[in-house]
Amino acid sequence: MDITHLEKQIQHKQSFLCLGLDSDLSKIPNHLLNKVDPIFSFNKSLLDSLNELIVAVKINTAFYEANGSSGWLTLEKTIRYINNNYPDLFTIADAKRGDIGNTSDKYAQAFFNTLEFDSITVSPYMGSDSIAPFLKYKDKQTILLGLTSNKGAEDFQLFPDLNNSLFKRVLTQSKQWNHSNNLMYVVGATKAAYLKDIRSIVPDNFLLIPGVGTQGGSLKEIFDNGANNKIGLLVNSSRSIIYASKKEDYLIEAFKVAQKLQFEMKQLILRCL
Amino acid sequence: MDITHLEKQIQHKQSFLCLGLDSDLSKIPNHLLNKVDPIFSFNKSLLDSLNELIVAVKINTAFYEANGSSGWLTLEKTIRYINNNYPDLFTIADAKRGDIGNTSDKYAQAFFNTLEFDSITVSPYMGSDSIAPFLKYKDKQTILLGLTSNKGAEDFQLFPDLNNSLFKRVLTQSKQWNHSNNLMYVVGATKAAYLKDIRSIVPDNFLLIPGVGTQGGSLKEIFDNGANNKIGLLVNSSRSIIYASKKEDYLIEAFKVAQKLQFEMKQLILRCL
Repeated sequence: MDITHLEKQIQHKQSFLCLGLDSDLSKIPNHLLNKVDPIFSFNKSLLDSLNELIVAVKINTAFYEANGSSGWLTLEKTIRYINNNYPDLFTIADAKRGDIGNTSDKYAQAFFNTLEFDSITVSPYMGSDSIAPFLKYKDKQTILLGLTSNKGAEDFQLFPDLNNSLFKRVLTQSKQWNHSNNLMYVVGATKAAYLKDIRSIVPDNFLLIPGVGTQGGSLKEIFDNGANNKIGLLVNSSRSIIYASKKEDYLIEAFKVAQKLQFEMKQLILRCL
Repeated sequence: MDITHLEKQIQHKQSFLCLGLDSDLSKIPNHLLNKVDPIFSFNKSLLDSLNELIVAVKINTAFYEANGSSGWLTLEKTIRYINNNYPDLFTIADAKRGDIGNTSDKYAQAFFNTLEFDSITVSPYMGSDSIAPFLKYKDKQTILLGLTSNKGAEDFQLFPDLNNSLFKRVLTQSKQWNHSNNLMYVVGATKAAYLKDIRSIVPDNFLLIPGVGTQGGSLKEIFDNGANNKIGLLVNSSRSIIYASKKEDYLIEAFKVAQKLQFEMKQLILRCL
């Protein structure tokens, strides 16, 4: 997907909400367990219910890999269902990949060609040549880990000190890479205090912000510090939406949570016009 | 697998060779392409030929994911074949995973339970709580990226400077984590000059050394700088062995390359007794 199409969708839907499908057999409603592929049924029903409230879908590969090759098949069915039925949704493989060049080539092939995702999350640890094979795909976005939402982010991302930290080095270095206009960055919602700083380093790139909801980040704070003149944000919510209820009313409850978030987003977007 | 069993195998086979199955449909011998699952046939034949020369097998997940769910099935068949037929081989999922806690939990489940690998490679970028879910598996090994073999390693792993670098921080911090005796570290063979330093920080942990062969590292230099009194090394070779020939003689040529490496290793091990 061309990035300008995503920007248009954000304006059109008045939403920068990304739905995270961290779908887990032990957490989905019991009545779905007798379906042929319970996780796919769960994903499909959520997409059919929520597609007008969201602009992006993030599929967390770990939850599918945990179920082996049948889980990978569910992942394949889910991305195909989205691409066939909701081509306006921007799709994210939340895979945190990254390896030496010839291996990253294969990961890019796996997620961009075989599965036809619009984007993938990648880890910067191995440096520029580990990311280059993803960036060379013109119509795809590569989403680099910047400052993550978890406690352990402090261990290395803030090393050696806040002003001169690894995560800032990742931002400044990656800006200079070939095709860096295909980059987005992961910034945890729990790190809103850092967002202004981050935005000043990468004014134009999209930020993918996980951690609103279960992990506790605030939407207004994120928007005030992180939005640019094209919004430039994708805020992801997974568990707080998809597990809003474990009963037969799960789609109604998921809709309520997603609608509340989209409504808040709409207010924030309208304020800027 | 208990780590002492791996140590015994190294002494028994006089080898610390790890076979890397970066198996690629476009590179395997043509005559295998009419098999039901060419990659599995290729892997199986290599394992049957080389198992006495090697102590470990590293499966690079990217090469399987590139083929979608059928590739994941090949991965599953390969690890099962190893566990059923060669239980003395230490198995490595070269997957470079790592995410927030509840997601890393799923990756650990995927590779340690569903696929029954003995170990997995992980990226340290997200810090301690992204690695903890792997380390809590007592009989499994977690292989943390330290200093990798690629050019891009310089971008962040040597940041901010050589003496006070991120990769050293990763080594010193991770040593303090719970269950750190379950840690191994990836150190690229092209970085042999750093090995003495690394060994002084983590004297007891195994080092997984990729990059001998195609990437150009020297075995003797690695051993002289990286071995400890239990050897403590796994040296991986992928392409130089598995693609030694693209013709019907590929197993003979692969055997020759692996045997040459094992012979060199034997000399190095014997020198230490």
